[in-house]
Amino acid sequence: METLTSAGHSLYFESNLDALKTLLESNKYSKVFVLADEHTSEICLPLFQSLLDDFSEFDLIETSAGEENKNIDFCIGIWKTLLDFEADRKSLMINLGGGVITDMGGFIASTYKRGIDFINVPTTLLSQVDASVGGKTGIDIDNVKNMVGTFTLPQMVFIETAFLKTLPERELLSGFAEMIKHGLIYDKPYYEKLKASNYLIPAAEDIYRSVEIKNEVVTIDPHEKNLRKILNFGHTIGHAVEGYSLANDENPLTHGEAIAIGFICEAALSIKNSTLTKEELNDISGYILSLYPKYHIKKESFDTLFELMQSDKKNEDGNILFSLLEKTGKCTFNCRVSTANILSSLDYYNSL
Amino acid sequence: METLTSAGHSLYFESNLDALKTLLESNKYSKVFVLADEHTSEICLPLFQSLLDDFSEFDLIETSAGEENKNIDFCIGIWKTLLDFEADRKSLMINLGGGVITDMGGFIASTYKRGIDFINVPTTLLSQVDASVGGKTGIDIDNVKNMVGTFTLPQMVFIETAFLKTLPERELLSGFAEMIKHGLIYDKPYYEKLKASNYLIPAAEDIYRSVEIKNEVVTIDPHEKNLRKILNFGHTIGHAVEGYSLANDENPLTHGEAIAIGFICEAALSIKNSTLTKEELNDISGYILSLYPKYHIKKESFDTLFELMQSDKKNEDGNILFSLLEKTGKCTFNCRVSTANILSSLDYYNSL
Repeated sequence: METLTSAGHSLYFESNLDALKTLLESNKYSKVFVLADEHTSEICLPLFQSLLDDFSEFDLIETSAGEENKNIDFCIGIWKTLLDFEADRKSLMINLGGGVITDMGGFIASTYKRGIDFINVPTTLLSQVDASVGGKTGIDIDNVKNMVGTFTLPQMVFIETAFLKTLPERELLSGFAEMIKHGLIYDKPYYEKLKASNYLIPAAEDIYRSVEIKNEVVTIDPHEKNLRKILNFGHTIGHAVEGYSLANDENPLTHGEAIAIGFICEAALSIKNSTLTKEELNDISGYILSLYPKYHIKKESFDTLFELMQSDKKNEDGNILFSLLEKTGKCTFNCRVSTANILSSLDYYNSL
Repeated sequence: METLTSAGHSLYFESNLDALKTLLESNKYSKVFVLADEHTSEICLPLFQSLLDDFSEFDLIETSAGEENKNIDFCIGIWKTLLDFEADRKSLMINLGGGVITDMGGFIASTYKRGIDFINVPTTLLSQVDASVGGKTGIDIDNVKNMVGTFTLPQMVFIETAFLKTLPERELLSGFAEMIKHGLIYDKPYYEKLKASNYLIPAAEDIYRSVEIKNEVVTIDPHEKNLRKILNFGHTIGHAVEGYSLANDENPLTHGEAIAIGFICEAALSIKNSTLTKEELNDISGYILSLYPKYHIKKESFDTLFELMQSDKKNEDGNILFSLLEKTGKCTFNCRVSTANILSSLDYYNSL
């Protein structure tokens, strides 16, 4: 077992959930609730229980899978369920699932009776390398991602790679995009290592390095006043494309597919508004397109995408602010970019 | 101007809002929003603006007055309004009103885009001596008070007694109950002083003392792990009666009227389950009934009241926990009380 101390809580990389077992046996909590979606309750919960010696002293709260259900209606339903089940301030909530579960479960726990303890057990690659670290909780409102939320740290986070074996290829690729991002913004050798690796069998040490990078950044700047903004590289355009796709496409893009588009567009912005070279852009675009399916960003969606970018949380004084690459492995933030350049970056992606 | 430093923010007692003027002129904020209800926007906003040299650089968000509107639907509406008005993370929200506005406005601000700054300008006696201090934000769900909320400190709190001149007598009495509570749980001489005072013209120094007591308690225990629970004296039964009345009475009890009933019932519990004397109970009951109208707690409401008490946030492991008086001016907490004693305390109140 390896342990990484994050700002105020512990991250456990392990195969036996020992620390959780000890905590549950300590009788610190009056009741334990496990939040899962219909998939994780079927596929991950049995493994989770077996890793905890057939742990069964909990109430299961099941929600529907999918980003479209990370909304206030589900929150209200779960708050009321907690009340019906007589959850008090000494109750514990264990969020077992992907980012939807850990984001929403964290928000619910951090606000129920003004806050109860929660533990995240991310079961997807995406949530292991992204949502697991940094204390962001949140829900979407009207397709605006994480419009409402808190900064609240879980008591513990468990990263158990055994859960990944249950994931379909498309899910693995989605999480892999965040790992690529960590390389692009912070660690060029790691980016090169990932390029040579097989995303279908992500190595535990690569997952560890990704979590380590994110943890380093959020420990320096927990409330995203400055440095933490670099983690949003690819996300200004990526989130907009993701929101649009979710609302309009029959088979919407995954988060990773959307931010991968964002990487290309924002790398294109980086050669105009920062110091990235054309060669580096070509390398990034080539690698991304070798992994992720090409998407067509419709001309008629540009206005909507632009509106979605305007509600991005990084913005200030009405300006859309980007995090851009200075070079592969180094990122800057608070970059103002002209509307024309934003639009031409979308055109650039389409032209590939 | 007097200033009291609370845990992490400043409380200003003053007549000119100088510190706020300086803050607003500093250009620290990209946009300023004022949240008010239909009464405070009409009655208090002009005074507020004049105290700030006719301040007008803000967007007004108006909500409906009354506890029944401190709900998630209004929150959703206001979150969306903030988004429509392009509020970003550098926006400031000023909550101008009573406890409904400061509780709900604080919750909205503490969760919008994971938290923006807010300032409380309490305009009722109740919110000046209670909601103004301690960083509790919250909304009600299904008549369960403050079921969802956060502990988040405002940047500043301004206590301006000029607002009180606009209040009807019943509102003043409602706030006065919290002042009486501060005396009962923490400061017998202050309680005796209040008994000799005129609640219709609350003295600034008495308001100050009340805020000081609350501030002392919440600074020691901001997250209500122990000592802060004494501030709930009268509230376990009081909140239940208030919730029941809100749902069933044509002219519901005010918060102060409800907790005043709670003071009597819980003082009656205190002679059985703590060390309060019968003489002290008689003194408290006599004083409360000289100020507050007698209410009849219906026999058929007892079950519902009991259920409401069971969802009280102080409870642990299914036990209803009370804060009880050891003597006038001293309070203890985490007291378990039998169901029979709870019911007979309601009978005691009815018998007066």
